[in-house]
Amino acid sequence: MRKRRRGSRRRSSAILGVLAWAILSSACASSSPPPPVEAEAPRPVETSVPAPAPAPAPTPAVAMAPVDLLPSWNDGRTKQAIQGFVAKVTTEGGPDFVPAPERIAVFDNDGTLWSEQPIYVQLAFTLDRVRELAPRHPEWKTKEPFKSVLSGDLKKALAGGEKAVAELIMATHTGMTTEEFQGIVERWFATAKHPKYGRPYTECVYQPMLELLAYLRANGFKTFIVSGGGLEFMRPITEKVYGIPPEQVIGSLAKTKFELRDGKPVLVREPGIAFIDDGPGKPVGIHHGIGRRPIAAFGNSDGDQQMLEWSAAGPGPRLILLVHHTDGTREVAYDRGSHIGKLDKALDEATAKGWVVASMKDDWKTIFPAQ
Amino acid sequence: MRKRRRGSRRRSSAILGVLAWAILSSACASSSPPPPVEAEAPRPVETSVPAPAPAPAPTPAVAMAPVDLLPSWNDGRTKQAIQGFVAKVTTEGGPDFVPAPERIAVFDNDGTLWSEQPIYVQLAFTLDRVRELAPRHPEWKTKEPFKSVLSGDLKKALAGGEKAVAELIMATHTGMTTEEFQGIVERWFATAKHPKYGRPYTECVYQPMLELLAYLRANGFKTFIVSGGGLEFMRPITEKVYGIPPEQVIGSLAKTKFELRDGKPVLVREPGIAFIDDGPGKPVGIHHGIGRRPIAAFGNSDGDQQMLEWSAAGPGPRLILLVHHTDGTREVAYDRGSHIGKLDKALDEATAKGWVVASMKDDWKTIFPAQ
Repeated sequence: MRKRRRGSRRRSSAILGVLAWAILSSACASSSPPPPVEAEAPRPVETSVPAPAPAPAPTPAVAMAPVDLLPSWNDGRTKQAIQGFVAKVTTEGGPDFVPAPERIAVFDNDGTLWSEQPIYVQLAFTLDRVRELAPRHPEWKTKEPFKSVLSGDLKKALAGGEKAVAELIMATHTGMTTEEFQGIVERWFATAKHPKYGRPYTECVYQPMLELLAYLRANGFKTFIVSGGGLEFMRPITEKVYGIPPEQVIGSLAKTKFELRDGKPVLVREPGIAFIDDGPGKPVGIHHGIGRRPIAAFGNSDGDQQMLEWSAAGPGPRLILLVHHTDGTREVAYDRGSHIGKLDKALDEATAKGWVVASMKDDWKTIFPAQ
Repeated sequence: MRKRRRGSRRRSSAILGVLAWAILSSACASSSPPPPVEAEAPRPVETSVPAPAPAPAPTPAVAMAPVDLLPSWNDGRTKQAIQGFVAKVTTEGGPDFVPAPERIAVFDNDGTLWSEQPIYVQLAFTLDRVRELAPRHPEWKTKEPFKSVLSGDLKKALAGGEKAVAELIMATHTGMTTEEFQGIVERWFATAKHPKYGRPYTECVYQPMLELLAYLRANGFKTFIVSGGGLEFMRPITEKVYGIPPEQVIGSLAKTKFELRDGKPVLVREPGIAFIDDGPGKPVGIHHGIGRRPIAAFGNSDGDQQMLEWSAAGPGPRLILLVHHTDGTREVAYDRGSHIGKLDKALDEATAKGWVVASMKDDWKTIFPAQ
């Protein structure tokens, strides 16, 4: 048993590293706004995306409904690329037709479907949860990293590095049943608000992406979330917010154990991470959770690169799309230099391989849903 | 990295133990038929299942189609329990109505949907694969456990216990990409035949269970397989045979790694087991893979006990059913004393809790599909 735990802890270090970066970045963000990273280095502009071939008068499944299901997307190459792809794979008898059960679309969550700045939503939850639990832990007043979280000095809190982050995560995400954790997450989402937009986090989702999810489903696609975030942190809200049922959410997994407590079966979230659904873990999560290679994949950062590569490498037409955070006015502009949602290598690969790069500034009429 | 492997190996020991039993049993089976275990100990007969309350003139979703979707099930308490449950949860406006997205049904595979005697199908594959690979491994002629597998002496092959089983599994199931393994499994299923029934393994499935799967889906259920077997051993056949798409199959997982080979992304099956979907692992697999508690669960052995307990413990009506192998003439009669598909504690719990116990002998008109 001890060996297993040690193995889990070792595996956790990758995600803890990510979280550490994110929290450190959060510490910086509390004193200054995220730098407009795109000014730091030249980046390929969206016009470098090859123009799709002119649509050959397709007769897609939506031909019966001339309503534009993507009203928040500006007309242009990006929208044409999406619509052209969907027309191709849904045109029965066409050379690129894909049967509905094989129309699998995968979406990253943080930065692709909802805002990930100034800190990941799950980190905001973690910090709030430390504050909420503090009265039950008087020892935290003098014990790092909790002491500094409680005094608002995140930079100091994270001086302990991965070990400190691990302590924060374990203290807030484990040691309860899955049902208890679900309740905790649901209660948090019901009241927590985004520090910049002042709305519930569930309304800091991207309106154009909500339309894209619904548009794909209207065309027979099955839509999945494939996120580095915790599976059980996302599931309480994905059905209501994205129309994605729990069985179509893939995420990172806590070690989980079946137990009988007073004869009642429960699942207990134990310290340790069973699976990290990030970077090279995403194709593995997709393979184990879906078992078909996606024909459409959507991400926004280097953590999505392998998912996009895996999806792109199958036969037939593919829609591989990066959401590029180019809008410093309506949202936050960041890419190559950002600690959160760093988009560097995947942006180069998008340029080299002709993946679609959606510019939030140019391609999106609106960012968030109307309130 | 070494620590992680060691952890995985340690975790594998549980399933390897199961496999060792199964192969040992197989070795015995080759010299004598499985004993009629039910004669060894008194077991609760199916009449101990509480009769369902008389159906209060339900108006289920199937009322429009008076066709019996379960023609291979004899009329009686078991069939009434199934139909009564489905009527209850599909009657809109009724007190027990369950919305379609929450109608989750989980099925064990070995012994519940298809035959698991005289050895698990996956073990038959393993042994065939050792024989097929032997020409490429001249060293196996003198190296145990391969030597004894090749000479047909399974008992001797397994003298090495778990270590020997691990060697057989690793030599046949890992060290290739997921796509290569899929091809190997597909080719095997295309030609291999069951030693007793002389038909392809994909036709050694239970006709009444095929009807039950289709009946539940016709009533808005989403059907999942939750099996201790290898996920990627099952998926190549589940859609064609059971109508269950790959994303609705949950099974044991090999350690899997993303790699770029000559720029092409592949997933490599590595030595080691990442997850064991058996016994207490089944509720964990259900929770991670589905995220909703099933309202109907079907199994046949003690390896399904925790899955049945977990499914039974939710609110509202539940259909919890054990397939009881009582038919020594048309199939194989076994329960408490069997090494494969041992049904002992779960049978006691079924009696105590009023779960439905389907007797293959009494409840099923036919066992296998017509050829």
